[in-house]
Amino acid sequence: MQQKQTCFTQEAQDTTCRARAGVVQTAHGPVATPVFMPVGTRATVKSLSPAELHEHGVQILLGNTYHLYLQPGHELIARRGGLHRFMAWDGPILTDSGGFQVFSLIYGSVAEEIKGRRPAMPSNHPDMVKVTEDGVLFRSYLDGSRHLFTPERSIAIQHALGADIIVCFDELPPLRAGYDYTAQSLERTHRWAQRCLDYHQQQAIPLVEGLPRQLLFGIVHGGIYPNLRSQSADYISSMAFDGLCIGGSLGGDKAQMYEVVDMTVPFLPDYWPRHLLGVGDVDDLIECVARGIDMFDCVAPTRMGRHGTALVREPERRWRISVTNAALREDDGPLQAGCPCMTCRTFSRAYIHHLFHAKELLGIRLVSIHNVAFLLHLMTEIRSSLIEGRFGALYRAWLGKDLPALSSRPQ
Amino acid sequence: MQQKQTCFTQEAQDTTCRARAGVVQTAHGPVATPVFMPVGTRATVKSLSPAELHEHGVQILLGNTYHLYLQPGHELIARRGGLHRFMAWDGPILTDSGGFQVFSLIYGSVAEEIKGRRPAMPSNHPDMVKVTEDGVLFRSYLDGSRHLFTPERSIAIQHALGADIIVCFDELPPLRAGYDYTAQSLERTHRWAQRCLDYHQQQAIPLVEGLPRQLLFGIVHGGIYPNLRSQSADYISSMAFDGLCIGGSLGGDKAQMYEVVDMTVPFLPDYWPRHLLGVGDVDDLIECVARGIDMFDCVAPTRMGRHGTALVREPERRWRISVTNAALREDDGPLQAGCPCMTCRTFSRAYIHHLFHAKELLGIRLVSIHNVAFLLHLMTEIRSSLIEGRFGALYRAWLGKDLPALSSRPQ
Repeated sequence: MQQKQTCFTQEAQDTTCRARAGVVQTAHGPVATPVFMPVGTRATVKSLSPAELHEHGVQILLGNTYHLYLQPGHELIARRGGLHRFMAWDGPILTDSGGFQVFSLIYGSVAEEIKGRRPAMPSNHPDMVKVTEDGVLFRSYLDGSRHLFTPERSIAIQHALGADIIVCFDELPPLRAGYDYTAQSLERTHRWAQRCLDYHQQQAIPLVEGLPRQLLFGIVHGGIYPNLRSQSADYISSMAFDGLCIGGSLGGDKAQMYEVVDMTVPFLPDYWPRHLLGVGDVDDLIECVARGIDMFDCVAPTRMGRHGTALVREPERRWRISVTNAALREDDGPLQAGCPCMTCRTFSRAYIHHLFHAKELLGIRLVSIHNVAFLLHLMTEIRSSLIEGRFGALYRAWLGKDLPALSSRPQ
Repeated sequence: MQQKQTCFTQEAQDTTCRARAGVVQTAHGPVATPVFMPVGTRATVKSLSPAELHEHGVQILLGNTYHLYLQPGHELIARRGGLHRFMAWDGPILTDSGGFQVFSLIYGSVAEEIKGRRPAMPSNHPDMVKVTEDGVLFRSYLDGSRHLFTPERSIAIQHALGADIIVCFDELPPLRAGYDYTAQSLERTHRWAQRCLDYHQQQAIPLVEGLPRQLLFGIVHGGIYPNLRSQSADYISSMAFDGLCIGGSLGGDKAQMYEVVDMTVPFLPDYWPRHLLGVGDVDDLIECVARGIDMFDCVAPTRMGRHGTALVREPERRWRISVTNAALREDDGPLQAGCPCMTCRTFSRAYIHHLFHAKELLGIRLVSIHNVAFLLHLMTEIRSSLIEGRFGALYRAWLGKDLPALSSRPQ
């Protein structure tokens, strides 16, 4: 049960797992959860217009502080009236802290780890200038110029961008960093969390009279280590945040990612929304909702769109088909039968197959729309099933198995 | 005055020049003229959706027979129900004959000539296999395979694609071909016109019961030579076509292009619509409407969109600005003040500038929409001015000078 007034209102809780439905109140309106948010890295969800995002049920976008800071710059965006106005999106926005990009350029990304791809060790990576107690000195991916992100700087940049939800600056040690480095990094990330919170409380101003100011989310770290995750969950939960993210290494495969979520969520308060950073595969969304996650973001639907990979309701194909596949050449059906998205209402697989073979930009757009709509439709289905008390049946229908037994918080 | 019942109804005629307004009836609905049609080379107007085209007032599209024949193939499109259904465009479509692309690959295009760019002489060009009385043997730009276009084949392909307006197969000798070759080519193109008409009359079937079948347009040739143009105009006008195009070399600069139109139109009947192939600059549209042209097509608005060049109402800038120009970096205004297109209603120059610098696909789309809408809006203005009897004032307002004196047909 909820213990205090926050931005989050829980509306339903599954009785056999941790899945729940709720609403997050933001300055740009409510967000019904569980929710998937498309990523608009450079103030645009690649190839899609804000009107298309609205039409297809997008509630909230994620913007990347790192990219926007470097190009076109947070100060320019602030002079344009903030990120919402700049990109003409009047719904809620969440910005990350910039830490993820800085560190994934150095260490490789969490998603690459889960897929078993691990880049070379970073010790002498030219982009990594230095991580100190103060912050991170790094080089721009655009021009090699040197920049410093500190917790205070990250929050200041996010204040300038003006997102509804902003996130603490953190270090992201990779899986292979091992226990000792992860434990040591965790303590610094906790000190950074306090600095973010202090700076935010001193500097933040209300976005709109009478509406909440920017919501600040903490980030729980601790890699794959249960004692570090529980320690971080307890610590972050004790602070005056508005919600939290689960960040850091999520392990070396999907099973380990689910374990990490499973070992973390029991230590989190019910009254905050929980965001799992950078996750968006169909099975991961369902599995992590079952484990108590409310919010997701991922570049996958638009990245797959650019590569001609479309989401379909076929678990045996890992929920995806390649539109360039010869089998689609004369297929007059939609990408997904019954899908209500603009692409599936209007165009055939044969046409989209042609567009990709002819390297036509419209193809990217049509598959991106479909993929975003597919995940949003999945999340809507999940939410309805929670409100109607039939999430277990949905889980079985999509994943072909029963809900797993989950861990519980030690008494 | 109109002398017989055709697909074209004239609604207004300027008293001081040859500009006129009318309506072309097609199987997929009426087209109000003067009209500009965006080009959907490969069954897509690059980066734009059919819904966007409709919203922005597009009445009719042009599809390229040459490209569609090679990829994905006219037979595949016919099996999908035709080009309209394949690309989900339910408005009128015009397909060209394929001749333009076959010959511009060999000789360079008419637009390149007008801009003073002339590629190397074609005599031993590897793509040009042979032009004979029968037709043209050429190589695919995709895979080098050999193909034969004859007048009958071009019409058969256009029947399969199913456009509302189809066009005779022609040879396009370049400006530098000179008088003798142009005259000799013209005679062959006239023989090809007869073969196209014969084949069309034998093979064509009504598209829809009670509505006109595919309209077949002849093409007037003759390069820059008045006697050849008048001879071709008289010859083509004597045949049982539904309208006509002005094709072939239009000279070495814009002034010569206007002269070619001026020397041709007086020899054309009033009762047919007149299409000037491949022309779409702002000044050219106005100048050629003044000289009696009803229909235009050009890749310019979408090609410029891909390169970040936006149309603006500024003749001193040749009606165009580059969105990557540093002056737009913090410009909160729309591409064109007062423009009702989606791009200008929604996004600032600063945002579009950012999208192009960040190489974001949405930028291409936004500038393409604006450019198409800009030309359509110009054509709507032109049409209104004709119906309201003030085309001369519009001409002065856009071009800063009075209507020119035009040639008249010798008695």
